[in-house]
Amino acid sequence: MNATHLGLLAGTLTSVAAIPQVVKTLRTRHARDISIWQPVLLSIGVALWLMYGKLINDTPLILANIIPLVCNVMLTFLKLRYRNDGTDGHDGH
Amino acid sequence: MNATHLGLLAGTLTSVAAIPQVVKTLRTRHARDISIWQPVLLSIGVALWLMYGKLINDTPLILANIIPLVCNVMLTFLKLRYRNDGTDGHDGH
Repeated sequence: MNATHLGLLAGTLTSVAAIPQVVKTLRTRHARDISIWQPVLLSIGVALWLMYGKLINDTPLILANIIPLVCNVMLTFLKLRYRNDGTDGHDGH
Repeated sequence: MNATHLGLLAGTLTSVAAIPQVVKTLRTRHARDISIWQPVLLSIGVALWLMYGKLINDTPLILANIIPLVCNVMLTFLKLRYRNDGTDGHDGH
């Protein structure tokens, strides 16, 4: 494996990392233990990475940040949606 | 703000994004709603980014991934530590 392959693998893993969290949150409808700051900071951060990628015309950088942007914006809204889900874990509403 | 400033701001935000989640999990001792796959995939992903940064001798890339690596390794262990914390949210043990 050369450096480029290593970079592509790294980019793939960090790109898809938030997908399981989105799936879990949609399925359980609970977000009690999630800090809202992580998806908020990541949403803004990856949006800026996207803008930076556009400015310097770096296609891999743009592509690598699309999925994380979608996932983290979704997680931010899911956290807000389920913020009043109580603390007892099985009467989500 | 030029492209470099935008990139630095993006890197700072994505670097520190996991810190609030680590603080919240340490404080509440609950990790029920966290998918273990996010910190696991991010730990491996940012470790590979670090290795890639070393291979291509890119100091910003190395620096940007140190905090996320520490935070996501911690979150993986915290999720495993608190995986049997029950589902009722206030009798963590």
